[in-house]
Amino acid sequence: MKPVNLAEKFSRFDDHWHPRVVGALNGQLVKVAKLKGEFDWHFHATEDELFLVVKGTLRIQLRHGEVAIAPGEFYIVPRGVEHRPVADEEVHVVLFEPEMTSNTGNVVTERTRTTLEWI
Amino acid sequence: MKPVNLAEKFSRFDDHWHPRVVGALNGQLVKVAKLKGEFDWHFHATEDELFLVVKGTLRIQLRHGEVAIAPGEFYIVPRGVEHRPVADEEVHVVLFEPEMTSNTGNVVTERTRTTLEWI
Repeated sequence: MKPVNLAEKFSRFDDHWHPRVVGALNGQLVKVAKLKGEFDWHFHATEDELFLVVKGTLRIQLRHGEVAIAPGEFYIVPRGVEHRPVADEEVHVVLFEPEMTSNTGNVVTERTRTTLEWI
Repeated sequence: MKPVNLAEKFSRFDDHWHPRVVGALNGQLVKVAKLKGEFDWHFHATEDELFLVVKGTLRIQLRHGEVAIAPGEFYIVPRGVEHRPVADEEVHVVLFEPEMTSNTGNVVTERTRTTLEWI
């Protein structure tokens, strides 16, 4: 019966673009990830994806524009919308998405994660 | 294409125990609420409920103990688990839960909200 402390979870790893699971509810997962640099363009065919930023500013490039997400802000990328996360400086982000969501969506790259890692 | 700023959303209302909707994804809602005092004992028969605290410390009383959730921490109350949120000082909380979730779960009290209010 202890809460999940986000800062403590972020302290457990240092690699980028490697989400870890920190919670599960209603078929959805709560994940934390550190991001730096440019990710791959991708979309999720059937899943909306929430990005809640806790450190740094995350840019999400969309085909028709860009969203900048500062700490204390979140943005929901709707299903089917192609997007590319870009972190000019390191970003700490909390993700909220369905259990089946792949981090690279419709594409498979060297950064695709095929297993769920709980921390 | 603007992110949702949590502080800005919290600035829009002052009443307690009245969640507002600030996002929707995958059949789930993101809500914000200000809490103060003791809520009603209740449970949600089929929905898990996430409490992410951004200000203050939220105590969630359970029949077999209590959880204290500080800013930057979250706790998931599993479906079917009777609980009572208590905020000794004002708490600002972000909720993740299914669309159909009633704030008072299995009971109806004067604080039950029957409509969804987007802000």
